[in-house]
Parts: sequence; structure tokens; C-alpha cells
Amino acid sequence: MTEFGFIEQICQLFAPLPDQGFEGIGDDCAVLPLAGGEALVFTTDLLTEGVHFLRHATTARELGGKSLAVNLSDVAAMGVKPVATMLSIALPRDATQQWALEFMEGYRELSECFGTPLVGGDTTRSESGITINVTAIGRGALSHLKRRRDARPGDTIFVAGELGASGAGLREILAGRFDTPLAAVHRNPKPQVAEGIWFGEHPEVHAMMDLSDGLASDLGHILELSHAGAEIDLEHIPVAAGADLKTAACGGEDYKLLLTADAASSERLAAEFRERFGTPLYPIGRITRGEGLTWLRNGRPEVLDWRGFEHY
Amino acid sequence: MTEFGFIEQICQLFAPLPDQGFEGIGDDCAVLPLAGGEALVFTTDLLTEGVHFLRHATTARELGGKSLAVNLSDVAAMGVKPVATMLSIALPRDATQQWALEFMEGYRELSECFGTPLVGGDTTRSESGITINVTAIGRGALSHLKRRRDARPGDTIFVAGELGASGAGLREILAGRFDTPLAAVHRNPKPQVAEGIWFGEHPEVHAMMDLSDGLASDLGHILELSHAGAEIDLEHIPVAAGADLKTAACGGEDYKLLLTADAASSERLAAEFRERFGTPLYPIGRITRGEGLTWLRNGRPEVLDWRGFEHY
Repeated sequence: MTEFGFIEQICQLFAPLPDQGFEGIGDDCAVLPLAGGEALVFTTDLLTEGVHFLRHATTARELGGKSLAVNLSDVAAMGVKPVATMLSIALPRDATQQWALEFMEGYRELSECFGTPLVGGDTTRSESGITINVTAIGRGALSHLKRRRDARPGDTIFVAGELGASGAGLREILAGRFDTPLAAVHRNPKPQVAEGIWFGEHPEVHAMMDLSDGLASDLGHILELSHAGAEIDLEHIPVAAGADLKTAACGGEDYKLLLTADAASSERLAAEFRERFGTPLYPIGRITRGEGLTWLRNGRPEVLDWRGFEHY
Repeated sequence: MTEFGFIEQICQLFAPLPDQGFEGIGDDCAVLPLAGGEALVFTTDLLTEGVHFLRHATTARELGGKSLAVNLSDVAAMGVKPVATMLSIALPRDATQQWALEFMEGYRELSECFGTPLVGGDTTRSESGITINVTAIGRGALSHLKRRRDARPGDTIFVAGELGASGAGLREILAGRFDTPLAAVHRNPKPQVAEGIWFGEHPEVHAMMDLSDGLASDLGHILELSHAGAEIDLEHIPVAAGADLKTAACGGEDYKLLLTADAASSERLAAEFRERFGTPLYPIGRITRGEGLTWLRNGRPEVLDWRGFEHY
């Protein structure tokens, strides 16, 4: 059974339950609308040793930062501000006290950076392997929330940064080269928190998510939930230095924001983004009335068997 | 380093961060006051194979229920209603699809029982061992919240059910006897959700928590945070059938509520509790101006080296 097959079964199993005011599963975060036009969002992510990280290929400090970063990225992808996190960590006997403290320092550094307090958690022993679970809570105006289901035919598709550096870095790590700049990018993802909040404030932005499994896979979720298709111009995908096009399209863990915006506003949006953040917002294609993802090279369809990223 | 030593270091490390409206660490749940006199509470618990459960000694369905139960118990211990949960689960190759589905069915059964939707989560592979993390969210009136720090000298100390059955059941499981009634109690904790909400509505109840590590250990948290002491009458501890006094005082995972209440109201509270729930509320001692926990046998102090429960 695939992960998505299992999730589908879980959704069916729980569909009859009362919603208690929460929106259903399917986005980067669960959404709880509050009184006064506010909303809270919630996300949780489990990282297991040997699957999501290799202990010998990362420092504890980096791993602490990354565990938090991937969750902050999910909150940012909803268009609101992360306001708190909870951390559960299971440590085996061969993880030292020093390792645990350095992990927490990395977690705290990024917490400071984004002003998110640690409000709870759980620490326990593990029989083998380190396991980390982070829950992040975000808060903002309900009207600012961006959901995967809201892409509209004609929308311009943007990515908010260059792609492929993390995937290329992972390849170097797997080849035993830990000390390269790209390997460092893979181990130290930078969640686009300020960017996500900024997009939340722009109603011309329709759908948004963060790129964790690669464009080829993640865009599919937007298309499925929005009942739409997409054309991606291969020559417009911004490939990070050191990466290649396929890695940019299929590599995982870039944690850049992927969004769709009203075509009539898209030039202005990109100009304002550059003015605000000093970096480009890259238009890479458009939402169509069709179905599925079509790759175009210089306007011509190209059949590519490109899929998303799989973990170690 | 002990678990509590590590938690203490984490608290110091994160103390300088902004609170974003959350109350600090130290209770069964984190607390976020909302507008209009409401509050949300949050808790998270990590269960790892070989530490919190033995796969051969529990069914998947029971484990699904227990993973949820221990979190609902934390929400109930705050005096409010659980309204949603998120589940992360890491499965190794030797956990079958059938196992995973039965786990989810057990989780759903208890979710239905308490009306808590599953609003998010994460499923992933594990290199070895099953790991489960549940985050539970509760909601209620801010004025209903019960905190560990609010015990007052003179308060009557109550437990909301008999103690020791789970600890006695664990002993049988460790001796290889899985099919006994007490072993079943250990594997199927019943969170006192309705009771917790009911106590929340009673302002004469001051401090509350759930008994997960055993009375001898857990009461210490209330005393420390309330800057108070306690006397416990050994002959008043309600010992479950099949358990002994020491197991009732030190065994873990009973998930009964421990609370303190104004002495002048305590007889009425116990009578109302019995009327509402059909079971006794057991007075076991009182909060004092002193420090630490004093065991009394027929009114005389008795020195006992009794400590809380440790996992497998």
C-alpha cells in the first residue's frame, strides 16, 4: 500500500465523524476558523532516522533546525504566521546528552528567527533510532488562507525561488560528500515564512503549497483538488546553480512556495514581490481547464516520465 | 540525564522567546486563551515500540485506541472537551497493511466515542519499530481550565477512580500472561473525558491532572507548581481489585483524574459526582502548607521509598 493509498483509506474511515468546526484533511494544514474572522492552522510531521535523515550525514544542530523548518514551511504555505510549536523526540541509548542539547539549540535558533515559542512536547527513550515529531500552529485572518483547491483556469503558476539545490545536495550526501554547499542546502532548508504571510495578504494569489516532494508530484495535489490541469514551461523552471532541470522538477525538500495567481495581476505581483524580497517570483506555467500536468518545451508538449521525490 | 532534567534544560533554553499569547510549559496541555472567554489547549504524546508498548502483547486495534486515549486524558485533565486530533505514524516493513488498518480502526472507535475528528497527520516508513505521535486539541471556557499550580493548602485531594489495575496488568503482561482482565485494563485505558469536563465546570475544583506515572510521582508535580505539600492517607487510597496498595500508589497508566478541591465543598462535590457518574470520588488526603508528600497510616507518618512508574 502506498502512503497516499493509506491516507485515502484513513479519510474514508473518519469521514462520518463530526467536524467540530474544523475543515477537512487535504491541505498543508488543518484549519479551525475562529470568531472575529480569524483562523488557526495546524500541521504535524514525523521524521525517522534512516528515512528522513542519516545521523552521520547531519549535525544535531542542523537536524533540530530542519525538524522545525519543514513544519514552519507548511504553515507559511497556508498564508499565515506560525505562532507556536510542540516537539516530541525519542532518543536511543546511543544518542548522547550532547547530541540532544545541540539538537535543541538548532531548534531554538530557528524558533528565535521566526518568533515561535515551544509550548509543549514529549521526550522519551527509543529502542532504536531517533524519531522526531513536530506540531506547528499558525494564526491569521481566515480571508488570508490559501488552499490547494483554489487554483483557477488561466491562473499563472509561480515558484518563489530556485529549485533543485536540495535534491542535488541529497545526491552528494548519498555519495558521501557531506561538506559541499549543496549538501548544506539540503540539511538547512529555509522556510519561506515572510513570503507565505505576504502572499496571504494578496487576494490575487489563489492556491498555494510548499514544495516538499518536488514540483512534478506536488503540483498534482493542487490540480486534483482544484479539478484543473496545468502546463509547465520547462525552460521557465528556475534551476538552482549546481542542479539540473530534472532535479529541479522532481527533487524533494526545496521548501519553496508554489502558488497560482490571477493572470491579470501576475506581472504586478511579481514586481511587488521583487521589490519586497529582492528576489524574483518565477512564472513557470498556467492552470488550464484540462486534466493533469503537461510539460511544454518552447510551447510544444513533451512526454516525460518525471515523478516526485522519495525519501532515503 | 533524566527526562525531567532534559525538559528543565529545554525550558531554560526557550524561556526568552515571545509567548505569542500562549501560557508556558508545565501543565498537561499548552493553553491559548482566545477572544470571548474561550481557550484552546494542546498536548502531544510519542509512543515508541519496546518502550511504551510491546507489539506481541497488544492488538493493533487496542494500540490505536490507547494512543488516542492517553492524549484525550491530558485534555480532560485540563477540564475541557477534546475537539480534534492529529496522528503521525511510522511503520517498519514488518508491520502489515492489515495491522495498520486495524490500528486505525481502534483509533477511530475511540474517536467516535468522544466525537473527535482526525484533522491531520503524517504517515511514513520506519527503519525499525513502530512509532506513534498523537496531538490532541481541546476547547472550552478559559474559566474552566484546571492547572497543576492551583492547589491550595487545606484542599481535599481526590482521585476519580480506583488505582493500580493498569500497573498490575502490566506485571502480568511482563510475565507473559496477556489474556487476563487486568492485562486488558492496561491495554485499554479509558480516559475520563466526561468527568474532566464536569470538574471543569466546578470552580471549587482547584488543581487537576491525570495519573499517568503513578500517584507518588504525579502528585509531586502539583505540589511543586503549587508550592505546597500533601498528606496522603494510605488506607484511603482506592485499590483496584487484583492490585495491591503499592501498585495503586506507584503504578503507571491508570489515567484516572487526580484533583484538589476546596475542603468546605468536598463532601457535596463527591455526592454530586456519585449522582452524576454512579461511582465514588475518593478523598485520599489533603494539601498542606508544608513541602513534599507525606504518607500517613491511620494518621501517623510512614516513611516509604515509593516512586513513580517507569516504562518498559
